[in-house]
Amino acid sequence: MKQDWIKKKINELDSIGGYQKPEMHPDALKLDSNENYVISKQFQQDLINNAKKNCDVREYPLGGVERLINQLSKFLKVPSSMIGVGNGSDQILDLILSNFASKQTKVITSNPTFGFFEERCKLYSIPVTAIPFSSTMTLDINDFLKLSKSADILYLDSPNNPTGFQFQKNDLQKLVKSFNGLIIIDEAYGEFGDFSLSGMVKSQENLIVVQTLSKSFGLAGLRLGYFIANKKFTDVFNRVLQYPYPVSTLTIESAIVALDQYTQMKDAVQIIKEERKRIIENLKKYEAFEVFDSKANFVLFDAHGSHKRVYNALAEQGISIRTLGKIGKHDGCLRVTIGTKEMNSKFLLAIRDLLG
Amino acid sequence: MKQDWIKKKINELDSIGGYQKPEMHPDALKLDSNENYVISKQFQQDLINNAKKNCDVREYPLGGVERLINQLSKFLKVPSSMIGVGNGSDQILDLILSNFASKQTKVITSNPTFGFFEERCKLYSIPVTAIPFSSTMTLDINDFLKLSKSADILYLDSPNNPTGFQFQKNDLQKLVKSFNGLIIIDEAYGEFGDFSLSGMVKSQENLIVVQTLSKSFGLAGLRLGYFIANKKFTDVFNRVLQYPYPVSTLTIESAIVALDQYTQMKDAVQIIKEERKRIIENLKKYEAFEVFDSKANFVLFDAHGSHKRVYNALAEQGISIRTLGKIGKHDGCLRVTIGTKEMNSKFLLAIRDLLG
Repeated sequence: MKQDWIKKKINELDSIGGYQKPEMHPDALKLDSNENYVISKQFQQDLINNAKKNCDVREYPLGGVERLINQLSKFLKVPSSMIGVGNGSDQILDLILSNFASKQTKVITSNPTFGFFEERCKLYSIPVTAIPFSSTMTLDINDFLKLSKSADILYLDSPNNPTGFQFQKNDLQKLVKSFNGLIIIDEAYGEFGDFSLSGMVKSQENLIVVQTLSKSFGLAGLRLGYFIANKKFTDVFNRVLQYPYPVSTLTIESAIVALDQYTQMKDAVQIIKEERKRIIENLKKYEAFEVFDSKANFVLFDAHGSHKRVYNALAEQGISIRTLGKIGKHDGCLRVTIGTKEMNSKFLLAIRDLLG
Repeated sequence: MKQDWIKKKINELDSIGGYQKPEMHPDALKLDSNENYVISKQFQQDLINNAKKNCDVREYPLGGVERLINQLSKFLKVPSSMIGVGNGSDQILDLILSNFASKQTKVITSNPTFGFFEERCKLYSIPVTAIPFSSTMTLDINDFLKLSKSADILYLDSPNNPTGFQFQKNDLQKLVKSFNGLIIIDEAYGEFGDFSLSGMVKSQENLIVVQTLSKSFGLAGLRLGYFIANKKFTDVFNRVLQYPYPVSTLTIESAIVALDQYTQMKDAVQIIKEERKRIIENLKKYEAFEVFDSKANFVLFDAHGSHKRVYNALAEQGISIRTLGKIGKHDGCLRVTIGTKEMNSKFLLAIRDLLG
């Protein structure tokens, strides 16, 4: 019976498992998803109000993506012909993988990296070489340089999720220059880091830099990702790979206003960086923890044998962080998002009550 | 040099061309994209206002898709375990094709069919047998039945875009029962037609019925598609194929309210059906036109040699319709969307001035 191939395929897919979303903790202090609460709630309400005025959602957003790209061009100071958008960075990564990768393409990345990327490689049976983090939660550029001639695709999130690690700029630049295949640098957390590689796109035509409004702009619910790449790739992506209407009118119009008010994002990023320093310094006071440096809007720490106890005790107090368990040689990894000053203080106080 | 494969792939993709969006005609009477203007502008403004109240777009829409699926379940009277959503029907079709089809899978469909589906098959080099429409702009069910044992995937839009044709219900049911592979019935225009096949999903586990809020609900700008399928396929689609956050918070919350107010959609559909009858009857008065019956929210007609003149004359008067040119044996096909009574009257008046 011909339907057998369908059942077989469904069973194959079933065994992959899929991306694990965080647990739902209604009304909890959400420090589990790297969302940005420093951006004011009013900011996003203003965006929606403005968007509403410019929207007729009965219509397809014809020309909307083009206007959004023009606005991104002004914000990024990059020609609009080098910018494309997607339904979150997720969709950009997915379309690149499903069209440029296969069972025959060798991908190199770090272990761990962005969970969605890992899952998509599994889904498409793409062979992945994932270089592990050291015990100090860093990567060695030489491990990547060694593989740079033999791999087809390089994917790195810079800074990395969930470790917060970012290569030195000149190291990463050296890797990009030496890598012969397609390079995807995912800068979802780029604004919290030390540098962006977007300036290299003009000279490196195999480089795609992916960014998003989810983190620094605090607009995860809008689902808007974008990339910067050479004109030829960008043209083909936007015209052939991308859907005719990849994002909703409301997302387009909200994002245009958000980009116009980017100084609010810059202010929020500054506060988050200061708060990150405070959280790291505070967590380092506890012998029970091994705390890793971070260039992102979260901090990873190994609570060793007590990580389940810490996670549960925080949950009981209505504070939700992410439990990651084993990363490299570290068994008890927890990741806490940097929230507002008030949220962070509550988190630190709860830790002090538990361990102080 | 290893980068050669990237350039080669980009050139390959470049040659595909991609989906052709309609031309932009600012301020024109938009009868070119099968949008629904009978649904009031106030309806959608109310949706956005309601959505805004329930939204914090700083957060990922965790649990949002599940709430939306529950709402669809109530509206469709289908268990929520048999429903999945996507970023427009486009994304649902794309994920099915990129995961279930390949260069080795044979797809059968009609010629023409939904343009996005045609383009995606080209993109993934999927072999397609496309059965042409007859001179009366109908399909012969026997042509499909003959191929039902040898093809892997059947895709039919019911009603069809751009012809407006829909099979008789018992014919299509017979085809579905006899087809051994995966069956995708795209009911984007289903509410305007005579029947839905969603009731067959329980007994036909190889059947996926795709629907959307873009047409009958008039919410094309929200980009929300959904499907009804058996539990196993639905579970795998939602958990493995679909992205963790495929639609924005604003789309989720707006759609939940829209579905609650589905009687407004029903009323709009009724008006559109009546107006469709009026447009067909009126266009049939002109010898210059051959007008085809339609079960959708648009009417296809062959204006023969004068189709460019008709299209341009309407455009000059600020009325935008879609020029399709050759379909089967018909050379001068034009497609007009059914708008509000006022819009349709303007269209018919312009036709009368031109040809009357």
